Amino acid sequence: MARRRVGLWLVGAFGGVGTTITLGLATMARGLVDQTGLVTDLPDFRELSLPEPGDFVVGGHEIRRTSFQESAEEFRRNTGVFDASWLSACRDDLAAASSRVRPGPKLGLGPAIARLADWETESEPATARQAIDRIKADIAAFVKAEKIDHLIVLNVASTEAPFGIGEPHQTMAALNGSLSRTDALILPASSHYALAALEEGHTYLNFTPSLGASFPAAWELAETTGSLFGGKDGKTGETLMKTVLAPMFAARNFKVMSWVGHNIFGNRDGVVLDDPNNKSSKVETKDKVITEILGYKPASVVSIEYVPDMGDWKTAWDHIHFKGFLGTKMVLQFIWQGCDSLLAAPLGVDLARLADLEKQRGGKGLMRHLSCFFKGPEGDDENDFFKQYARLEEYVASLRAKTK
Amino acid sequence: MARRRVGLWLVGAFGGVGTTITLGLATMARGLVDQTGLVTDLPDFRELSLPEPGDFVVGGHEIRRTSFQESAEEFRRNTGVFDASWLSACRDDLAAASSRVRPGPKLGLGPAIARLADWETESEPATARQAIDRIKADIAAFVKAEKIDHLIVLNVASTEAPFGIGEPHQTMAALNGSLSRTDALILPASSHYALAALEEGHTYLNFTPSLGASFPAAWELAETTGSLFGGKDGKTGETLMKTVLAPMFAARNFKVMSWVGHNIFGNRDGVVLDDPNNKSSKVETKDKVITEILGYKPASVVSIEYVPDMGDWKTAWDHIHFKGFLGTKMVLQFIWQGCDSLLAAPLGVDLARLADLEKQRGGKGLMRHLSCFFKGPEGDDENDFFKQYARLEEYVASLRAKTK
Amino acid sequence: MARRRVGLWLVGAFGGVGTTITLGLATMARGLVDQTGLVTDLPDFRELSLPEPGDFVVGGHEIRRTSFQESAEEFRRNTGVFDASWLSACRDDLAAASSRVRPGPKLGLGPAIARLADWETESEPATARQAIDRIKADIAAFVKAEKIDHLIVLNVASTEAPFGIGEPHQTMAALNGSLSRTDALILPASSHYALAALEEGHTYLNFTPSLGASFPAAWELAETTGSLFGGKDGKTGETLMKTVLAPMFAARNFKVMSWVGHNIFGNRDGVVLDDPNNKSSKVETKDKVITEILGYKPASVVSIEYVPDMGDWKTAWDHIHFKGFLGTKMVLQFIWQGCDSLLAAPLGVDLARLADLEKQRGGKGLMRHLSCFFKGPEGDDENDFFKQYARLEEYVASLRAKTK
Amino acid sequence: MARRRVGLWLVGAFGGVGTTITLGLATMARGLVDQTGLVTDLPDFRELSLPEPGDFVVGGHEIRRTSFQESAEEFRRNTGVFDASWLSACRDDLAAASSRVRPGPKLGLGPAIARLADWETESEPATARQAIDRIKADIAAFVKAEKIDHLIVLNVASTEAPFGIGEPHQTMAALNGSLSRTDALILPASSHYALAALEEGHTYLNFTPSLGASFPAAWELAETTGSLFGGKDGKTGETLMKTVLAPMFAARNFKVMSWVGHNIFGNRDGVVLDDPNNKSSKVETKDKVITEILGYKPASVVSIEYVPDMGDWKTAWDHIHFKGFLGTKMVLQFIWQGCDSLLAAPLGVDLARLADLEKQRGGKGLMRHLSCFFKGPEGDDENDFFKQYARLEEYVASLRAKTK
Repeated sequence: MARRRVGLWLVGAFGGVGTTITLGLATMARGLVDQTGLVTDLPDFRELSLPEPGDFVVGGHEIRRTSFQESAEEFRRNTGVFDASWLSACRDDLAAASSRVRPGPKLGLGPAIARLADWETESEPATARQAIDRIKADIAAFVKAEKIDHLIVLNVASTEAPFGIGEPHQTMAALNGSLSRTDALILPASSHYALAALEEGHTYLNFTPSLGASFPAAWELAETTGSLFGGKDGKTGETLMKTVLAPMFAARNFKVMSWVGHNIFGNRDGVVLDDPNNKSSKVETKDKVITEILGYKPASVVSIEYVPDMGDWKTAWDHIHFKGFLGTKMVLQFIWQGCDSLLAAPLGVDLARLADLEKQRGGKGLMRHLSCFFKGPEGDDENDFFKQYARLEEYVASLRAKTK
Repeated sequence: MARRRVGLWLVGAFGGVGTTITLGLATMARGLVDQTGLVTDLPDFRELSLPEPGDFVVGGHEIRRTSFQESAEEFRRNTGVFDASWLSACRDDLAAASSRVRPGPKLGLGPAIARLADWETESEPATARQAIDRIKADIAAFVKAEKIDHLIVLNVASTEAPFGIGEPHQTMAALNGSLSRTDALILPASSHYALAALEEGHTYLNFTPSLGASFPAAWELAETTGSLFGGKDGKTGETLMKTVLAPMFAARNFKVMSWVGHNIFGNRDGVVLDDPNNKSSKVETKDKVITEILGYKPASVVSIEYVPDMGDWKTAWDHIHFKGFLGTKMVLQFIWQGCDSLLAAPLGVDLARLADLEKQRGGKGLMRHLSCFFKGPEGDDENDFFKQYARLEEYVASLRAKTK
Repeated sequence: MARRRVGLWLVGAFGGVGTTITLGLATMARGLVDQTGLVTDLPDFRELSLPEPGDFVVGGHEIRRTSFQESAEEFRRNTGVFDASWLSACRDDLAAASSRVRPGPKLGLGPAIARLADWETESEPATARQAIDRIKADIAAFVKAEKIDHLIVLNVASTEAPFGIGEPHQTMAALNGSLSRTDALILPASSHYALAALEEGHTYLNFTPSLGASFPAAWELAETTGSLFGGKDGKTGETLMKTVLAPMFAARNFKVMSWVGHNIFGNRDGVVLDDPNNKSSKVETKDKVITEILGYKPASVVSIEYVPDMGDWKTAWDHIHFKGFLGTKMVLQFIWQGCDSLLAAPLGVDLARLADLEKQRGGKGLMRHLSCFFKGPEGDDENDFFKQYARLEEYVASLRAKTK
Repeated sequence: MARRRVGLWLVGAFGGVGTTITLGLATMARGLVDQTGLVTDLPDFRELSLPEPGDFVVGGHEIRRTSFQESAEEFRRNTGVFDASWLSACRDDLAAASSRVRPGPKLGLGPAIARLADWETESEPATARQAIDRIKADIAAFVKAEKIDHLIVLNVASTEAPFGIGEPHQTMAALNGSLSRTDALILPASSHYALAALEEGHTYLNFTPSLGASFPAAWELAETTGSLFGGKDGKTGETLMKTVLAPMFAARNFKVMSWVGHNIFGNRDGVVLDDPNNKSSKVETKDKVITEILGYKPASVVSIEYVPDMGDWKTAWDHIHFKGFLGTKMVLQFIWQGCDSLLAAPLGVDLARLADLEKQRGGKGLMRHLSCFFKGPEGDDENDFFKQYARLEEYVASLRAKTK
C-alpha cells in the first residue's frame, strides 16, 4: 500500500523553525539522527498510526528570497548547531523543498516584519480576499502536484503585533462582507493563511501568538468546512518551565510574591520582537500563564531582549520570590539555555503528526488535546503543563484502546 | 463537644524541624501567622475534619539538653527567621512543650549523632528491648497525662548512617528473638522509636532517610496492631524540584545526559551529614528519584556540604545537561535558596493532620496517599511529584464525596 | 582636647541610605557592631586621623514627614535586617538626629519624587535662589547649634531625571544672573543643595546620579570658596562588579560581545526609578563603565525593575557573552544579592571620613582620589576599580609617609 | 634576515591543550583566525619583538598513540568547537607536527595517568636518569633537525598526584646521587621533563600543578645552566575569577564567610582528576589563593567532578557568602561556562612568546613577571590578578622604554 502523503505547508518557511523542521524531517527520514525531542517518539505514542518523517512533503510561503540550504548554513554558522555533514547529505531534499516555497503576500505584515521582506512579486494583493485567494491557489497547486492526502498549514512566521478584532470578526457573514474592503486592513497576514486553509478544509495550526484563526468567524468557518485547527504559540522554553513550576508552588501552598523573567536571544525573531508592538503579543502569553495557574497575580516582570550575538540561543533567567511557612521569604532562580528553533521544531513536527492522526480518525474542529504544546491554548483555561499532558495521554490511551 | 487532642511526639524534638513545628503550631493557634506553606490549608482540604493547630499537644524525645525556647532563639539568631515578638508571645507554649520532652536513649545513635548528645540520664538501655520499653513508658505517661486521643510519633531527628538489615528484620518472630541480645546492635535508634509506636498502635511517620519502620518485621507489626505509618524522608527542596522537573524532561522526550546537584547548608543536620556514612543515606534518596522518573540513569553528582555560616539556609545548585532535537545540547540550571526547617516543618504538620484524618476514618497500615511528601515514598515506585499529588487529591476528593 | 565635631548633613535623610548611615554611626559609636564593610576600617587606613563614628553629628533635609526611628523600623520589617535590639539601644540617638532634620524645599524635585513629598511647609521657595537660601539657613543654624567644625552635605536622595544644562550653567556669573528667574526651572533640587554647600565653603558629596554639583559653574564656585567636593553615584553592587570584571576581560584579550544586566529591587528608590525619566539617569552610569574600560561598546542591556516584595534586596543577574581563543563563545553569569542601603551606607561613611581627612589636610576642590567609590567619577575617565583603588592607596600611603 | 625559529615542545602533546595550541598556531599563521584571547596581542605588547605564530615549530612527547588530526577531530565532535574547515586547511601542518611527537617514558606517571598510556615502546627506562636522557635525546634530535634557536618545554600533560619531596630534592648534588636508583621512585614524570630541559639550558614552563621544576635542586640547576623557567598551573577560569573577585571583597572590607566552588567538566583531564590523588593537587591551588588574598581563611569547599557529557566545557558555580555593613549577610554567585582547552591554549602561547622575549633579552632563571598566568605562581606570594598583571605591564613598559 502506498504510504500516506502529508503536506506540511510552512508559513515563514525559511525562518529558524521552518528550516529546522525541514532539515529535521530530512535527517530523520534518512536515518542520520534519532527522534530525541519528539513527544510522538515516546513509547506511549509508538503504536499509533502516526505519519513517519519520510511521509511529510514540505512546502510553504515566505517573504524573504532565500532557500532552506542558505538559511540552514547561516543558522549553523551563527548558532553552532547542525552537523555540516547533514547539510550535504540532505542537499537534494532541501533544494526540492525550497522549490516548493512560494512568495507570500505582503498585505497585513505590519511594519516590523515588512522590513524583512525582499521577495518581490509581480503584483501584490490589495484586499484580504485577494491575499487569501492567492494563498489558496499556491496551496492547491502544491496539493495537486504532490498528490497530498492531508494538507496542514503550520504558522511558524515571526510574531505579529496584536490585532484588535471587532464586529467583522464575529461571524463569517460579517467577515465575508469585509474581506474585499480596500479602505481598511481587515486582518493581519497570519489570518489570511488561516482562512485560506480553513476555507478548503485543510488543517491549520498556529505556532505563534499572532491572530491566525483565533476569532469567532474563523471557528465558525472551521466548523462549516470540517477543518481541524489548533493553537496558539508554541510552549518551548521559559514558559514551559513556568507551567511546570507554578503548579509546584500552588501544590505546596507557597505564596509567590513576584516572578521575574528575563529572556535574551539573537535570532531573526528577535529583530521582530525588538519592535515593542510585536513584543507585546509575546509578553502577554508568557505572563498570564502564572496568574492562571496560581489563581492570583504576583508582581511580575517579563522581558524579551534582542542581543544579536546570542544567535538562536535563548537564555532566560527567572527569579521567583515566594513566601513559605511562617511567612519566610525564599527564592528559586533558574537559567534556561536553549536553542530556540531546536526546541520549537520538534513540537511543530509533533503537532503535524498528531493532527494527521486526528484527521485519520475523522476528527474536526479545535484539537483541545494538544494544549500541552501551546503557551496560550485555544479554548482552554488549563495552563498546568502536567494536567495538559495528562489529557494528551488520555487521548492516546483511548486511541490505543480502540486499536486493540 | 470537646476538641480532639492529637499528640505529636517529636523524635529529635529540639532540632530545627521540631522547633519550627512547635513554634509554628503555637503561632498559628494564637493567630499570629497564617497557614501559608501548609498543603492542608489549600481550598481542597478545608472542608475535611482535620485537627486545628491548637488541637495538637507536642511532646518528644531528644538527646541534647536544651529547650524549645533556647533552640528557637538560637535559630532566629543564626538564620534570621522567626519574628522576635513570636518568641515572647509563645513563651509559655514553648516552655510547656519543653517540659514534655524526655531524654532519648543513646543506644544505636551511631557516632556522628552520639557526639551531639549531652543529656545525661541515670541509666542507659543495653538492649533494643530496653530502649523500646523506656520510649514506650515515656509516651504512655504523656498520653495519660495529656488525655491524648491519637498519638503520632514523627521522626525529625538527624539522619542516621545506612543500617544493613538481615534475617532478624524479616519477621516479628525473628526480631523479637533478637531484641534482647547484648552482643550486637540489632537496630538503629530510629527503629526503637518506630517499634515503640507500632507496638502500641500509635501512628509512626518517618521524615528522615533513617531506617525507622522500613523493614518487613515492622510492617508486619503495624498490620498486627492496626497502626498507621508512612515515610520516608521529607521532600522539601532540591528533591522536590527534581521530581517536578524530571517529568518535564521525560514528557518532552529530552534525553538527560547528566544531572549535577550541589547542596550547601549549615545547620546541625549538616554537622551530622558531614559524616560520610550519614551523608550516604541522604545522597541515595536524592539521587535515585531521577533514574526512576526518567527510566534510565544519567550521569549524576549529588553533594551535600556543611558550610557553617549558611545556617538553615540550604542552597542548591543543579545543572541539568540534556539533548534535544537533532542531538542539540542544552542546559537548565536552578538555584534554590530555601530555609530547610521552614520547608520541612509545614510538611510535618501536614503529615500529622492527614494521618489523624486517616485515623478518624478508621484507616490502618501504610498510608500510600502521602507519597508526595516523601523523597523515598515507602511501598511506592512513583516519584513524579504531580502524579503523587494527584493521588492525594483523589483521596481528598473521595473523602469529601463521602462527607456530602 | 575636645574631639572634632563633623556635621553630616544628609539630603534625603529618612531614606534607606540616610537611615542606615544614621543607625550605623550610632551602633558603631555604642560599640554594638564592628566596622565590617567600611573601607576606612582596613589596616592601611587605621593610623590616619579619621573621625570616629561618635565624632559625627547627623542632620539633614527630607521631603517626607517621618523619623529615623520609623524609617528604621519599616526597613527592618520589609527587608529583614537591623537587629531589633539596636533600635531600642539607639532610640535616643535616632530621636536626636530626627529633630535635626528639616523639611526640604520642593522646587525642582520632578514629578516622580514630588509624589512622595508629604512634609508640608508654610511657604515654598519660588526661585532657585530662595531654595538655596533656605537650605543655607537651615544648615547654618545646625552648624551653630552643634558647634560643627566641618560640615559635609551628602546627597543620598532619590535619583532625579536627567537635567539638561546650558549657557546659564557654564559660569557663576551666568548662573547668578539666572537663579532668581521665575519663568523657568534653572536647576534640579539636588543642585540647590550643592550650591548651598559650596557657597558657604562646606563640603559636598553626591552619592546619586543627579546633577548636584556636576556642571562648570559649580566647579568654579567650589574653587572660589575653597570647598571640597566629589561624586557621583555610589558604586555599590552590580556596577562595582562590572568595574572589577571588565578589566579582567580586557587583560585576557577576551572580546565581550554582549553584557546584559538585569536588576530588581523594591525599596523607595525603586518607586522613583520606575519612572522612565529617573531610570534613564541610573542606566546611563551603569552602562557606560563597560565601554570605557573595554575600549569598545559591546551589545548591552541594562534594566532596573521595581519589584515591591524585594524590599531593599537588590538582585542583579548579569550575563556576559564573550569570545575567547579561536573565536570560541563562552559565558560568564553572576547573580548579586545585596541589600542596597547596607552597601551604600558604609561608602557614605567612608566618603565623609575621607573628606574630613582631606579637610584637615587643607585640601580644596575636586577629590579625584575618591573615584573608587563612584559609578561615574567626576573629572576622571578611569573606571577600572582596582586602578581607582590603587590611587586611593597611594593617597593614603603618602599621608602616612608625612605623618611619620 | 631569517625569522627566528622557536621550538615549542609540548609534554602531553595530543591532549586538549596541546592540540589547541598546535591547531591555534597553524590557524593564526595561515590567517584563518585573529588573535583574540592572546594577552600578547594587546596593544601594549605589539611593539615588542615577540615571535609570530608562524615562528613556532611544535614537537613534543605523548603517551597515547594518536595524532593532532585525530585528537582535533575528536575534540571538535565532543565539544562543538573548531571549524571543520580549519582542520582541512591545516591538515599538513598538523601531520607535520604529529610526526615530531615522540613516545614519552612511562616511568613516574602514577596509576591514573598510566591507565591512559597506549603508545608502546621497545624499552622503558628503569631509572630517572634513563628517562631524562631519553627525553634529552628526543629533544636534541628535534632541535638539530629543525634548526631551533630557542627550545621551550611546556608541560600541558594531565595533573599528577602530589609528590612529596625530601632530602634528595634539596640540592643537585643529592639529586644526582639518586637519579640512578632503581629501588624507589625519585621523581614524578613531570620532573623528568623539567630536568631534561634545564640540564640543556632550555626553557621550562609548567602549565600544570604537577611537581615539574618546583623543588630546590631544580632551581639550582636552572641557575647553573642559565635556563629560564616558570610555573605553575595555568590560571584559566574559576581561579582567574577568584583572584579577580577576592581583591574586591578585601578592598571593600567585606568579610567572606564562605566560598564554595563546584566545577564540572568531561575531558580527558577529568578522567585523571577523577582519581582522588590527582584531584588533590588541583584543589589545593584552587583553594589557597583566596586565603592568601583575603588574609584569613573562610569556610570553603572546592570540588572538581568528572561529568563525561560536558566534554571540554568546564562549568563552575561559585557561591560566596559574605558579611557587609552591620553584619548584613549577602551573596554573590557566579557561573562560568568556558571551554577549558580554549582558555588554556592561548595562555600557553602567551607564555611561550614572553619566554622567548625574555630569552632574547638575555634573561635567566625564574620569570616572576609571568605570575598572572598561574594559579600557584612560583616564588611569588601575590595572587591578586590585577597586581600580578600590573607587574607584567611594568615589565613590558620597561622593555618598550629600552627599545626607544
